[in-house]
Amino acid sequence: MRKFAAERSRYLLAHTNDFSSVLQHPTASLYSSSSRSLKSQLLLRFLNTTAAPNPSSSDSMASDYSSAPVKLDSINPKVLECEYAVRGEIVTLAQKLQEELKKNPGSHPFDEILYCNIGNPQSLGQQPITFFREVLALCDHPAILDKAETQGLFSADSIERAFQILDQIPGRATGAYSHSQGIKGLRDTIAAGIEARDGFPADPNDIFLTDGASPAVHMMMQLLIRSKNDGILCPIPQYPLYSASIALHGGTLVPYYLDEATGWGLEISDLKNQLETAKSRGISVRALVVINPGNPTGQVLAENNQQQIVDFCKKEGLVLLADEVYQENIYVPDKQFHSFKKVARSMGYGEKDISLVSFQSVSKGYYGECGKRGGYMEVTGFSPEIREQIYKVASVNLCSNISGQILASLVMNPPKVGDESYESYSAEKDAILSSLARRAKKLEEAFNGLEGVTCNRAEGAMYLFPRIELPKKAIEAAKAVNTAPDAFYARLLLNATGIVVVPGSGFGQVPGTWHFRCTILPQEDRIPAIISRLTEFHKGFMDEFRG
Amino acid sequence: MRKFAAERSRYLLAHTNDFSSVLQHPTASLYSSSSRSLKSQLLLRFLNTTAAPNPSSSDSMASDYSSAPVKLDSINPKVLECEYAVRGEIVTLAQKLQEELKKNPGSHPFDEILYCNIGNPQSLGQQPITFFREVLALCDHPAILDKAETQGLFSADSIERAFQILDQIPGRATGAYSHSQGIKGLRDTIAAGIEARDGFPADPNDIFLTDGASPAVHMMMQLLIRSKNDGILCPIPQYPLYSASIALHGGTLVPYYLDEATGWGLEISDLKNQLETAKSRGISVRALVVINPGNPTGQVLAENNQQQIVDFCKKEGLVLLADEVYQENIYVPDKQFHSFKKVARSMGYGEKDISLVSFQSVSKGYYGECGKRGGYMEVTGFSPEIREQIYKVASVNLCSNISGQILASLVMNPPKVGDESYESYSAEKDAILSSLARRAKKLEEAFNGLEGVTCNRAEGAMYLFPRIELPKKAIEAAKAVNTAPDAFYARLLLNATGIVVVPGSGFGQVPGTWHFRCTILPQEDRIPAIISRLTEFHKGFMDEFRG
Repeated sequence: MRKFAAERSRYLLAHTNDFSSVLQHPTASLYSSSSRSLKSQLLLRFLNTTAAPNPSSSDSMASDYSSAPVKLDSINPKVLECEYAVRGEIVTLAQKLQEELKKNPGSHPFDEILYCNIGNPQSLGQQPITFFREVLALCDHPAILDKAETQGLFSADSIERAFQILDQIPGRATGAYSHSQGIKGLRDTIAAGIEARDGFPADPNDIFLTDGASPAVHMMMQLLIRSKNDGILCPIPQYPLYSASIALHGGTLVPYYLDEATGWGLEISDLKNQLETAKSRGISVRALVVINPGNPTGQVLAENNQQQIVDFCKKEGLVLLADEVYQENIYVPDKQFHSFKKVARSMGYGEKDISLVSFQSVSKGYYGECGKRGGYMEVTGFSPEIREQIYKVASVNLCSNISGQILASLVMNPPKVGDESYESYSAEKDAILSSLARRAKKLEEAFNGLEGVTCNRAEGAMYLFPRIELPKKAIEAAKAVNTAPDAFYARLLLNATGIVVVPGSGFGQVPGTWHFRCTILPQEDRIPAIISRLTEFHKGFMDEFRG
Repeated sequence: MRKFAAERSRYLLAHTNDFSSVLQHPTASLYSSSSRSLKSQLLLRFLNTTAAPNPSSSDSMASDYSSAPVKLDSINPKVLECEYAVRGEIVTLAQKLQEELKKNPGSHPFDEILYCNIGNPQSLGQQPITFFREVLALCDHPAILDKAETQGLFSADSIERAFQILDQIPGRATGAYSHSQGIKGLRDTIAAGIEARDGFPADPNDIFLTDGASPAVHMMMQLLIRSKNDGILCPIPQYPLYSASIALHGGTLVPYYLDEATGWGLEISDLKNQLETAKSRGISVRALVVINPGNPTGQVLAENNQQQIVDFCKKEGLVLLADEVYQENIYVPDKQFHSFKKVARSMGYGEKDISLVSFQSVSKGYYGECGKRGGYMEVTGFSPEIREQIYKVASVNLCSNISGQILASLVMNPPKVGDESYESYSAEKDAILSSLARRAKKLEEAFNGLEGVTCNRAEGAMYLFPRIELPKKAIEAAKAVNTAPDAFYARLLLNATGIVVVPGSGFGQVPGTWHFRCTILPQEDRIPAIISRLTEFHKGFMDEFRG
């Protein structure tokens, strides 16, 4: 398989300009017209719903807007190009089915929609860490801090922490814009947390707090990309934030393939090939994106592999953009998280030797606080004048939300042994992480038990990315309805079971292979039912389309 | 003056391509070299501090980063072009002075820095509205909702409201990503609030909740701007978010001048001239930005003027981008806020007749919750397929922060007569707004009492934008240190008094005129001292430089 991947990507680099065949659009018009040519009753049932063409309900026809000044062919073409499958058409359809279920219970062969499309743990029942929420509530309404009743409602250390945080905020004003990099005291805490994690110093002035990791990624793309001739090396499969951001900023995604056969391994030789091919086509490659633990692929990089990556970036003059948002999500005893900064510093490379950006988020880990939109990037190895430009871009949006900033500081400095909350915090954290590990294992085994499906183990992150060998007939049926075969599978799965997964074509995959991404996030007691629904569907699907 | 403005802007449109002379850079290197050529001891004292060249402290010289891959000449030139004066160099200098004061009290002729550069009320002591914070705290930590102590700490209606809001959130999960437009139930509330305000229907599917108004503005610019040949009509003076966003998205700012002589009036004839001139130069003008109440200028548009603007946009096929974030900040009895949507609907124009986007924020009004980063845009008059593109761009960042979303719903649906909190809410709100009106009046009178200064009244928003007739000698002195004269004045003001204002050149002004923007936000009991510091400085400045 590795050979195949390298072969294909060389071919693609040589023959395409925008890599569009690598990142096929997941669905086009499955529910458009020709479904009647398929004779299967089963399929007709699967196809009897249509996705709303517009996420905002509207009973108006587009043609009525003929005098509106903005037409599809007059908007920014970069917006048109951008695709973001994890909130794409399959999800829009799922939302429609959910509304139908609400209005007419029993209208579908399932009771509820199970959103396994996105790493959104609390939407599937994961509870927030109590200590974190206590501190947030107290910072939102500091007036209650001195009240007697508060002692009965909140832990002593959450009250103490809230006081500490408020003292770090000028005027204790949690409702004021902060410094555009984030509140200095919180950045001090985060830097101390990074230091404790890595064993190497971290500078609070290197931290830029952001509304989740996504805006930080956009900021770096905005800084680095000047035109279509600027390239960013991205893994395939990749988290589509990267392809979307590169498209929106008008750059070129230069793909390198993760090797499914070796557990989604990252081969330096492939990186080199892709870089050289891109260069030979006039593309100036600016940065390398590495997602570790991997999304959608779930692998955890070995330290020596990370060292090779650091050396590669240093030698080739690339900025290393390290997506490390899953740093707390590791499920196998033989793997550990090492930040790229720790790896680089361990190799003796200092601030001036390598340009490295690490992204972290409060949305992942055991905390899973997606709705709080907290995150940061740690920016090292850039000259003061470049840092000033990053600061300027950050300042245009004034600052990230203060609750998210506070939460980012809590995540990097949770309760310690001896704190009143430590035991409950620790129990909550361990319960979540050990349950996630069990769920990952169970789903992995279930996928591997399905005909024609193989699935690498989820070493980390929140996803499995099984590969399906789709029968020829299924591929033909998908073609007949003008849809990518994996999107066809995902669509039928949704219609039959209510389970929402994202087709591999939304992440990129070796052409001719088909996958889907499924989160490990449904609550543990639901996993057996999900597995049996999946298994039943898959059997029916294969029976329908097997050669 | 109106004539002069039209004359100048015609000249500029005819002679420049990027309008850079309209938006002069506020400061360059005031503290660089030649200050010794100025013989004034006063001036030397004023100039004896230097701004940090880099907001992130760093003792490293840029040259040490010679092997770093990213150089100033290799970043996105749009980032280099972008300027954002309200967090620009003067503010960086102020932060430095603040640190010096902390380390060495008495090191400057003032005790503290007064940040009048930005509409950030809570940073200057404004207290948040209690009801809003109660609800936010309860939604952050719903576990306490059923506890007995909670009844003693929180108002009954805040508890009820928190329950209502939680019921609107799928799974009551305030820690989950929401729908990319925002939680549907909160959008329902906001739409109802808009309806109640305007007397015309509002559709929750038209609402896009965002992290403050800024990301919403960026989203629209990203959609509309394809290249330098796409223009956006913006008022001069303007809030520099607009010039920054247009620069970052690679478009052209087409300026129209507000007429200082008629209280910053908006002349349709000037709009037409600017549009025609831009067209004749091959610029396709896509949208018109109107800020009402005005920023930095503080005027409130008359309804018939708004009608003219609506007709102009309709006739010329322009999207009307209505910045209405100061809709609650009106300080004069003869003016009222009318949303552009209300005005358009009152004229009989429906959804299909005009493309209109209204921006609102939780950062302004009487609430001033800047740090919460809540806001929304109401998007009307766009076809479903364009709406789908806006949704897609919103989905790439998943969703805005949930606390900000909740707060946006509270702001559009505050306590009503009969609710337990109504009286205290109402008292807090009235106290803030009436105090702001008094502060605006006092500062306006003070500015008008200064030699060579004229200042229009602040009808709304949070700013005064006085004009200074700078003596010839001052202009020469500024030139000698390679700085815009208004930035020179602002710099000396800061060094002498600790008061931070933003030079007019950061907002744009009729060439040859000089202004600064000063917020009306310092607490009321501080205003007399501020006025006397300002007055004393101004007298000294004029004595120094008077001809």
